[in-house]
Order: sequence, then structure tokens, then C-alpha cells
Amino acid sequence: MDLLNVKDPAFLKECSDEELESLAQDIRDFLISHLSVTGGHLGPNLGVVELTLVLHQLFDSPKDKFLFDVGHQAYVHKILTGRAGQFEQLRQYEGLCGFPKRSESEHDVWETGHSSTSLSGAMGMALARDLKGENSHVVPIIGDGALTGGMALEALNHIGHEQTDVTVVLNDNEMSIAPNVGALHSMLGRMRTAGKYQRAKEDLEMLIRKIPAFGGRLAATAERVKDSLKYLLVSGMFFEEMGFTYLGPVDGHDLEDLKKNFLYAKKTKGPVLVHVITKKGKGYGPAENDAKGTWHGLGPYKIESGEVVKKPGPPSYSGVFASTLKKIAANDNRVVAITAAMPGGTGLDKFAQDFPERTFDVGIAEQHATTMSAGLATQGMKPVFAVYSTFLQRGYDQLVHDVCRQNLNVVFAIDRAGLVGADGETHQGVFDISYLRHLPNMKIIQPKDENELQHMLYTAVQNDDGPMAVRYPRGTGYGIEMDQELKEIPLGKWEVLKEGTDLTILTFGTMIPVAEAAAEQLQKKGVSARVVNARSIKPLDADMLLKLADEQTPILTIEESALLGGFGSAVLEFFHDQDRHRVHVERMGIPDRYIEHGSVPQLLEEIGLTSDEVAKRALKAIPMKRQRA
Amino acid sequence: MDLLNVKDPAFLKECSDEELESLAQDIRDFLISHLSVTGGHLGPNLGVVELTLVLHQLFDSPKDKFLFDVGHQAYVHKILTGRAGQFEQLRQYEGLCGFPKRSESEHDVWETGHSSTSLSGAMGMALARDLKGENSHVVPIIGDGALTGGMALEALNHIGHEQTDVTVVLNDNEMSIAPNVGALHSMLGRMRTAGKYQRAKEDLEMLIRKIPAFGGRLAATAERVKDSLKYLLVSGMFFEEMGFTYLGPVDGHDLEDLKKNFLYAKKTKGPVLVHVITKKGKGYGPAENDAKGTWHGLGPYKIESGEVVKKPGPPSYSGVFASTLKKIAANDNRVVAITAAMPGGTGLDKFAQDFPERTFDVGIAEQHATTMSAGLATQGMKPVFAVYSTFLQRGYDQLVHDVCRQNLNVVFAIDRAGLVGADGETHQGVFDISYLRHLPNMKIIQPKDENELQHMLYTAVQNDDGPMAVRYPRGTGYGIEMDQELKEIPLGKWEVLKEGTDLTILTFGTMIPVAEAAAEQLQKKGVSARVVNARSIKPLDADMLLKLADEQTPILTIEESALLGGFGSAVLEFFHDQDRHRVHVERMGIPDRYIEHGSVPQLLEEIGLTSDEVAKRALKAIPMKRQRA
Repeated sequence: MDLLNVKDPAFLKECSDEELESLAQDIRDFLISHLSVTGGHLGPNLGVVELTLVLHQLFDSPKDKFLFDVGHQAYVHKILTGRAGQFEQLRQYEGLCGFPKRSESEHDVWETGHSSTSLSGAMGMALARDLKGENSHVVPIIGDGALTGGMALEALNHIGHEQTDVTVVLNDNEMSIAPNVGALHSMLGRMRTAGKYQRAKEDLEMLIRKIPAFGGRLAATAERVKDSLKYLLVSGMFFEEMGFTYLGPVDGHDLEDLKKNFLYAKKTKGPVLVHVITKKGKGYGPAENDAKGTWHGLGPYKIESGEVVKKPGPPSYSGVFASTLKKIAANDNRVVAITAAMPGGTGLDKFAQDFPERTFDVGIAEQHATTMSAGLATQGMKPVFAVYSTFLQRGYDQLVHDVCRQNLNVVFAIDRAGLVGADGETHQGVFDISYLRHLPNMKIIQPKDENELQHMLYTAVQNDDGPMAVRYPRGTGYGIEMDQELKEIPLGKWEVLKEGTDLTILTFGTMIPVAEAAAEQLQKKGVSARVVNARSIKPLDADMLLKLADEQTPILTIEESALLGGFGSAVLEFFHDQDRHRVHVERMGIPDRYIEHGSVPQLLEEIGLTSDEVAKRALKAIPMKRQRA
Repeated sequence: MDLLNVKDPAFLKECSDEELESLAQDIRDFLISHLSVTGGHLGPNLGVVELTLVLHQLFDSPKDKFLFDVGHQAYVHKILTGRAGQFEQLRQYEGLCGFPKRSESEHDVWETGHSSTSLSGAMGMALARDLKGENSHVVPIIGDGALTGGMALEALNHIGHEQTDVTVVLNDNEMSIAPNVGALHSMLGRMRTAGKYQRAKEDLEMLIRKIPAFGGRLAATAERVKDSLKYLLVSGMFFEEMGFTYLGPVDGHDLEDLKKNFLYAKKTKGPVLVHVITKKGKGYGPAENDAKGTWHGLGPYKIESGEVVKKPGPPSYSGVFASTLKKIAANDNRVVAITAAMPGGTGLDKFAQDFPERTFDVGIAEQHATTMSAGLATQGMKPVFAVYSTFLQRGYDQLVHDVCRQNLNVVFAIDRAGLVGADGETHQGVFDISYLRHLPNMKIIQPKDENELQHMLYTAVQNDDGPMAVRYPRGTGYGIEMDQELKEIPLGKWEVLKEGTDLTILTFGTMIPVAEAAAEQLQKKGVSARVVNARSIKPLDADMLLKLADEQTPILTIEESALLGGFGSAVLEFFHDQDRHRVHVERMGIPDRYIEHGSVPQLLEEIGLTSDEVAKRALKAIPMKRQRA
């Protein structure tokens, strides 16, 4: 059928299994074709086609509530709720969001982006329903990876023991470990019936040693962490003991199996967990046989060949981070690297090739990763936690309480700092300066380019005075020449990139080219602007700031980060604390609202972080007598 | 023996069991006697006397590493490591810390205060040991309650699957559920051997229904959440499946049983969990029979009678919060209250007496509590999450991603905001303004007294424009008269408490009396200071600030909160954003370091938040011509 005609999922109630099968094929064709142009999360969505069809057939959205954990697997749901026509603008500025969005549809009742939140949201909705005496189903759909996040386990524990009616759908992707799951599953089953627990356990351990994935020390730590939980999941025992009725495993691509189990789940009182086995990328060869996770989320590709369209370009910041860390680690045994389920995104997969025994992937567990880094540091190690700005938010208390309070030498390599673009408001890395700057002992630096990144990473590892964060953006550097010798960048010292006499622009990272372009524009109008690489965000360069105050020319701060409590505020605090109350400081940055998806240039345009706007603001700040034009 | 002579735990190696028994009695007498004067965490420490003795006898601290989760149960450890002589100054200014403290002793290798961090810290230490090829034991000691914290489960999952040598001590306090644990334990055991899982499960459910604690809907939700996990724990199965060797249950007051198991644990490769059953308050009648948790942590008491010394005084802020919430909830069905294992501390135990079905204690699980509140709010409920400022830190990502981003009407009743005193640096509630203020949609208010608190809580519940935080301090109000009628306090509107012409003091909450006293001092010197109750921290009172800018007199901001990114910074941001670049603003507040324990007045003195210092700072700010004295 023509998916553009779908306005509401109600029509599914009348569909036969044959019609559903055909519809599943249409949806797959639609996704493969559209995403080849726009890019997006192909693999996860191809995996949940039948699951989403059955959920919408058997439940009544929006009265019944679907909560998609992480949310990048909600495309099928979006198609079935009347949004197929918007897929040409998927993840584009003012187009369809790549995640559930309450303003898009009444069927999107819960917004996600970060993982492991759906169970808590569902519990809140279910408690509200019961208190109001209403009658509806609350259905969170959560992946096996998201279950390693502590808050999902907190929620499971609570739901199980309140015995609240919640229908949890565990979307267990068939990963590399999949063929073994069955063996382990039946072994656990035998254990329970045979009662010879200790012997069975030894058998199990023997089996595990024989499985190649488990043989090597670092075969795939992330998978192992995920799988550790999987042993419990497949047994069902874990969930039964947590107070859930366990149904499964269910074949997530078998309509009959799905329907049978969900019909049973609907009738069951108390919390139910339906364990659905799905295959990521199902129905599209290149995505099904995806060893590297390429097809999880990606840009445009060629449908026939499965070739991903890649533009050649300068190295990414993540890549420079990884290669530099290798270089440092080769000469420094203390260096260890930590990631929370992001080895590919952060570049640590490359580090792990050289240093498998010094790489730790803890799964989706940023709290544990942060505090484990603290533990490593107490023993003189130099842990480098590579983490996206937005995900480090989940380690905030651990930063306050474990790392900064104990003043431990942990390096935070904060990737995706600043606007990230298509992933949108849940993923923008715009709060880290504001949530890190007020922590005692924390130091924050940001490089102006990939060459400075390598020196800064080196600086952070050499540092012996407590925690330090090196933040850098998503995407590529400028392709500039890289120094061969690593050197330390002095903390609290800024760099004048261009001299000027009428005003000073203090900025860092991605905003430096913007400031430089603005300075050129200003020059043409006869205004001489100084541009400073304010690379040390905490501490500030006190000497330079005091000199600037004496000059009595205006200062403009620019940051691709939240204005409230950010770098510009630090500058204001400094001047007033130093009794320089009359310095004219203007601040430009991210305003006090969430920034939606779009390309980074579009978003910068929207919020006025462009060279034109900087030039305008500068002219406004300069007293007329200085403006010769 | 005289505990003051103990300098090092090494002497324990030579002790016979009889000598240990006698030493245990000496330690109990010491704790009961000393804490009756200073106060402190009596119950938890009386429970771990034998456990701590055996740990120090069988392991070699500090080569072997003890990590006390939460850390209030480390008194026995402190005595055995040479600190008995400092107990007269326990939790007092510049005296012995109530938690492990690395600067106090080489035996304190890990600092705690917040719960659930010890396993992650231990994993970091163990990984470092293995990488360095060293040989030592890492021994985290964690309570059953702390295991419900998500990060502890994240760590368990990781340790189990790395198969790292870590000896986890599960300190399972005998709680109200204790007599039943055995029955459930053996039932789970039967389940495993009999294999008739489904029937056994039905038996179990029947049994649970018969246990009084489980009959009522809200019998003791906190206990149930904790116990839910306990079912898994006692079976051992949970830990075995997580990859741990499970030893126990061990009688935590039986030296022989303890020694036998820890000797075995020392020899076992890979992660081990020793499940130790202890009794809180063991050896002191009043603390052993402690239904209400009074003896967990308390002030001075009379040893003979077990009577807790209480000074009569005005109602506490927590008490006013609870009684007001009752009043509001009586007329508003939407109101529900949430706590994360702090029903007593927040006053919600009193709310639960009237509204058991509208009170949810989720256990130590602030992440889940925050996002569950978001879920409730999506359905039109008015969730009020009562939480200490320092513990809400653990819900920061959930605030950013779930509550504020979805702009949901969740009320945060932030208790213990500001300095908390004896609990010290892990518990000071001094960061919340800095970590909340930069979140879009968040509103923050703080009352000047208990009467304004009730109005503010009412205001927050009435608010339909997204999240709002009402913050209030630890301790009591002023005993002022309470209005009978609740009213809304306008957001973004401040209140002039005292008029003045030479300068303006902007402050809120606890600092208002300090500012008023300073204004009186200034009056005597001929300086006229205006004092403003700046009760709306976000948004600010823009009208008033613009008027103040026009007056061109200095402004002094005072806050019992971190200076970086705090209220004073908000004022600076406002003036500069409004092109009022020449306003003289001085900021007073908590400096950029962690503040240790002591009485709140002592700490305020230390950091200069006193009326004398405020008056001095005001005089400095005022141009000489205005100073008539």
C-alpha cells in the first residue's frame, strides 16, 4: 500500500496476517529507499517492523502508551501514525525528528534520545492511570543494551515490587552472541531442573571458554557486559524474581508468535515482560550482515551495493583523539581508556586494537565509568574517560562526589561538545561547561583545531593536579598539519590570534573561525578587533583579563555552549570579583532553551552564532567615536 | 583494652577469639558512651563491630583496600586505625570526619558519603592492581539498601563479567523483614532443586500475601523495594549468575563464621560476594529495638534510658513542607509525593500517614524517581519529589533530558539546600542553584521563612508552566506565625524588606537575617542599605534590577550556595545582557572549594558569610562620598 495514505494506525485492527506481511515489506522498502538519501537509524528500525505492526494492531495508541527507549527505533511507529510524508525531511532542520516528539503526534507520548529512561517514564504513567482509575496499557520498548543502564534496573526493581500493570517489551537484538544464546538458555533451564547447580555452573564456564567470543581477554568487552545480563534475561528467572511475568523468547519477525504473546500479556495482571528476539537490519542484506555496527545509524548509501557514501575529508576529532592517546599510551603505562558503550563513536575501538588490556568498555553505565575512573586514579593510573558531552550528564553526581571532591587525576575526553546537528535536542552537547565549571578542582580546556587537540590531550594526561576535561566538537578538523612532538599547553594562558585595538573577542573551539571572519568584516568597516583563543575555560587567563580591563575597550565572548553559567559568565564573575565593575562585556552563546535538530550551520544561523551577527554585535558594543566608518 | 592505645590494626593478627570478643565489647562501650555526647551514626556502627574486627585481622590494610559504601559505618575502622582519641570531636569543626577521609589516615583509601559508589571505586582499584601486576585484596563493604542504587548494579554487572578479583562484602542489616528471609531463602533453594518453578512461584506468592508486611498496599514501600532485591540476594543465584562466587549467609556477629568465610574468600579467584547478616544497633537495647530508624544517626542521648536529648524549638522546614503538602493534597487529587529512601528525613512519612496511596518511596534511586515524576506529570498529575539538594545531583541527566526538556510540571522540594553542617562536604547542598539554573524551563524559588515556604510550595503545585524547584535549608524555621490561607507568590517578583539609599543587598533564604543584621550595623555608621528578599532565583525580578541599575548605587548579592554559576552570576548576566555594563555588583557566597564538616555558624564564619563580613564588603563597595561616618 501507499504509506503516504496512512493517517492513523486504527486500520491495522482489520488487517489479516497476509496484509500485515505485505505492509511489513512496504515499510522496509520505504525505509531502505528513503534513508539511502537522508541517512538515519536504518538497522534498528528494520529490526522492529513486525513488532511495531503487532503493537499497533493489538493496543490502542494513544490511549495505550508506547514509550520507545532511546527512541531511534520509532520510525515504523512514525509511519503508522501518519508521518510517512515527512521522511524526506528526516532529521533535517524543521523536518521530522529522528526521535519521538510530543509536538509531532499525539501518539508520541514520551520523548527519548538518551537510553534507559522508558521504564521510569512508564512507571509514572502507570501509577497516574491507577490513581485516576483509568484503564489503559503502558508499553515501554527497551533494548537489551539499555538494560545495563542503572536507572533501568532501578525502575525494574520498583515496578516489580509495586506489582503495577506495565507491559515491558524487551527488544533483544540478535547480536554476534546470538547463536550461543540458545545453548546458554537451555543450559540455564537444565540447571533449574537438574538441581546440580555447582556442576552445571562448571559446565557453563567450560562452554563459555569454548565460545570464541569469550576466549580472548578483550574479544568484545561491550558485548560481554551486555551479555552478562543476557544470561539472566534468557533464563526468565531474573524477571520472574523481580516480580514480572516473563513471556518468551518470542520470534520478533513471526507475526503469529508476537500476537499470541502480546494477547496473553494484555490479559495478564501485574508487570509483564515480553522478551522479543529481533534482528537488526532485517530484510536488507548489508545491514543484516553488519559486524561493525555501520548500519546502526548512518548517512546516505547506495541501495544496490550497500556502499556507504563517504566524502573524503580531514580526520575527525575523535580520530585524532584516538591516535594521540595511542601515542601517549605507548610511552606511559599509567594511561587507560574507558568508554560507556561508545567504542566506535569515541574512536576507542582503534585504541583498543593496540591496547586491549588497557581499554574498558563498561556498557551504558556512565555513573560506573566515572567512579571507576576515580578508583583507577587513586592507584596512580591515568584514566581517560572518552564520553559524549550529553552522556557525561549522567555522571554528574559522580563528578561532584567521587572525582572532583577527592581531586583525582581523571581525564575527561568530552566528545560531541557543542551542537551535534541531526540528533537534535537530546544530544546537543551544550551544557557541559555550565555543569563542570562550578565543580571545585575541575579544569576545562578546548582546542582551536585538531593539532591543538593532541597537545591538550597530552597536557591533560601530564597534569597531576586533579581532574581535567578536554572538550572537542563532533565532526572533522581542518586538515591542518600536525606537530610531531607533543607539548604541554599552559593552563590559564590564552593565545592572541589576531591583534586589534577597538574591541576584543574572547572565544574558543568552533567559534574561532566565526570570530576571525567577523574580525575581517569589521576591518573593512575600519574597526580593529582582537581575536583571542580563550582555550583555558577554567581557569581563565587572569593576567590577560586584567590587561583587557585596563584597556577599557569592549569585550565580546562567544561560545557554542549554554550562556547561563557558561564561559561568558565566568568572565563577568572575574571582572566583578576583581573590582573591575565597569568593563563592557557582551556575551554570545546558546540561549536558555533546547535547540532542535538540523545541520549545525542552520542551527548556528538560527541562534545568531554567525560572523555577521558577531560583527553586528561588535559594532553595537563599540562607542561611536571608535567607529571610523 | 584502652582503645586510645590502638595505633595500628596490625596487633589484631595475634588476637585470639576471646580477645576479639572482649575488644568488641570495649568498642561497643566506647561508641555508646562517646556518641551519647557527640551524636553520630550509632546503629550502623554497632552492627559492624565483629565484621570490621575480622576484616582487619584477616586482611592487611592499607595494602588491602577497604571501601566503606556510604561510609557512616566506618567508626570501628577509625578506632582500629588509631583514631579513638579523636572521637570527642566527631563530626565537629576541624574534628574527626563522620565518613572515611583520605587525609585522616592511610587506611582510608576511598571517601564516601553518597551511597552505591564503593563497587565502582573498588573495580577501578582492582583493575589498576592487575595492570600493575600487584597483589592485594580490594574489599568494598556495601549495605543492602545501597544495592538498589543503579550505579551499584552497573558495577556488579561489570565486575562479574570482567571476572576481576574483588571481595564484595554485602552488609545485610537485619530489618523488619528479617524473620521471613529464611523462609523465602529456603523456598528459593527448593525451587532450584525441585524444578517445579511455576508451582513454587505460586506458593511463594501465597506466602508473601500471608506476611503482614506485604498485606497492605503501602505497608512499607521502602522496605519492599529493598526486599525485592533481597529475594534475589538470599538465593545467591543472582550473584552467581552475575559471575560472583557467593558465600553466605554469614552471621555477622559470629567471629568463627565470619573468619571461615573470609578465609575462603581470600583464597577464591575472581569476584566473590560474602553475604553477611548483621543487626543494626547490636549490643545496645534502645538501638536494637529501633522500629523508626531513630538510632541510625542522631544527636546526644541518655545512655541509661535511651532517651534522645531533644531541644524544644520551632518546626523544621521539612515538617512545614510535609504538613503543607498534606493541606494542598487534601484539595487536589493530582498531588503525589515521591521520595528516594528518605521518608523520614524529608517529612514524607507524615504525608504518607494521610495519603499512603499517593506516596511513593522508590528506594535509593534518584534517577528513577526524577524520571518517574516526569512520567506522572505527562498524565496531568502533580508529582512533588522531596529530595536533598546533594542527592538530586544524581538525577541531573534526568532533569536535563526528561523533566526540563519535556517541560513537565514536576515540583522539586529541595531539602537541605545550603550548608548542612556535621555531615560535611559530601552532603553540603551548595551546588543545586548552579546545576539547575542553566536548565531551560526550570524555575527556582526559595522562601525567607517557614511561612513563605508553605506559600511557595502552594505556588509550585499551582504552576502549570513546567518544572519548579522550591529549595529550603536543613533545620528549623523561626517559629513565626503561619498564615492560615495559602496564596501564590508571584514568580520573578522580589520583596523589599528594608528600604535604603546607599546600596542594595540582594539575598534569599538563610542569608536574609545576616543581611538584615549587616544593614543594622551599617545604619550605625550612617550607611543606608536596602535589603531585598530575592526569593525568585530564576527568573530574576527584571523590573527591580533595571530600577536598581538606574539608581547607580552598588549591589551586593549574598547566597549560601556556590558562587560559580550561582545567583550572583545570574545578576551579572542580566545587567550585561541588558546593556547595563557599569553596575557595581559584588558577590558573596560559597567559594570554589569543598566545605568540610562543622556547625553551620562555624562554616559560615570560615567562609565569611557573616553580618560583619557583609557590612565590611558593603562599606568597601560604597564610594567614600556616600559614607557619612
